[in-house]
Amino acid sequence: MTEQIPLQKKVLSENDRLAAEIRGRLDAHKVLALNLVSSPGSGKTSLLERTLAELGSKLNIAVVAGDVQTENDANRISRAGGTVVKPIITNGKCHLDARMVLDVLGDIDFAATNLLVIENVGNLVCPSSYDLGEDMKVVLISTTEGDDKPLKYPGMFRRSSAMVVNKIDLLGLSDFELARVKENALQINGTLIIHELSCRTGQGLDRWYAWLSDMMAAKKSGKLVQHVDSR
Amino acid sequence: MTEQIPLQKKVLSENDRLAAEIRGRLDAHKVLALNLVSSPGSGKTSLLERTLAELGSKLNIAVVAGDVQTENDANRISRAGGTVVKPIITNGKCHLDARMVLDVLGDIDFAATNLLVIENVGNLVCPSSYDLGEDMKVVLISTTEGDDKPLKYPGMFRRSSAMVVNKIDLLGLSDFELARVKENALQINGTLIIHELSCRTGQGLDRWYAWLSDMMAAKKSGKLVQHVDSR
Repeated sequence: MTEQIPLQKKVLSENDRLAAEIRGRLDAHKVLALNLVSSPGSGKTSLLERTLAELGSKLNIAVVAGDVQTENDANRISRAGGTVVKPIITNGKCHLDARMVLDVLGDIDFAATNLLVIENVGNLVCPSSYDLGEDMKVVLISTTEGDDKPLKYPGMFRRSSAMVVNKIDLLGLSDFELARVKENALQINGTLIIHELSCRTGQGLDRWYAWLSDMMAAKKSGKLVQHVDSR
Repeated sequence: MTEQIPLQKKVLSENDRLAAEIRGRLDAHKVLALNLVSSPGSGKTSLLERTLAELGSKLNIAVVAGDVQTENDANRISRAGGTVVKPIITNGKCHLDARMVLDVLGDIDFAATNLLVIENVGNLVCPSSYDLGEDMKVVLISTTEGDDKPLKYPGMFRRSSAMVVNKIDLLGLSDFELARVKENALQINGTLIIHELSCRTGQGLDRWYAWLSDMMAAKKSGKLVQHVDSR
């Protein structure tokens, strides 16, 4: 297993090269790109469905939806009004890499696109190591998971710019405490933007939409600070 | 990236050799070994806490608790009365491998142990590829995730012998349907044993304890069919 480390470095540096190519294309057209990451079941697809229902008629939103198997998520997103939806089936691989994303971006007209959302494979570990050319990672956590997740999976929370705490309508049904998850997350990454919302009841979504608009405006005006932390 | 496939095969075959060594030691003492796998937050640690509180005074249960970072789970399990609890911090790695497990098994007295439970890293993808010498994998899914998870992460459900559907007290609070998750799981693996329970309310736990006892008895009498599916 001694060859694994240099090989992994080589794979990652090739990934970085392709991610830079994606980032260059997005930046040329000032398209904001988010990489949505979380455990399976935290609500990445639900958040996208809600966001497309609210903003999809006003904005051109392209979505890349990765899954280990099935196009279930891509189908849900298409039904919700995704302007352009590109499914990627990883066939057992535990993360998206820049090559997979680059391969499906081909015919997207970025000149006519406001926002690209990449929905990663449900996995709190591996996707954190792969830059996909995004402006920022947004990590979701739901109130039915444990509030110590940021401490147990620090890589993902360190490399994300924003954390969405989903399913706040279910607060009180478990030991999960909102104050504690925020404290744990900020201990790992003091600059995290935190959203608290429920994709089911809609609570907190207005602030999420407003933040997305702010980020898109910042990208257009060249004022967005990209968060690429490869620690 | 063309070197990745042969290298991965080599790493996995080395893992298989070490897993066989673990299995040999467990079989010599007829110790039942379970590999608990799930997404982060499905309730692996909660199920262990409950099981140790119920059975820990009657049986000698050894636990190996894997986490990417922190010993939080191992500490919770120790408080619940784990006879022997061995934490493994993977330091960013997304799964346990047989080498890590072998390294902590050293001083466990298997002659005086009835059950070994290995709590894997919270991840529905990568741990499915690593045999840890267990008799069977038990995959957890909770009712706050999506009921299409077996279709989206088929490898894990195919390689498991049992599926625990946790948090059934929260049924009805989302679109999750019990009948649908069972149908989806059985479509992937028609021989899955299915448990429905709530670690919070205790519902369904009696059947889980009874099943564990049956499996331990089967192991003792040499009648347990080990489920090692490396597809």
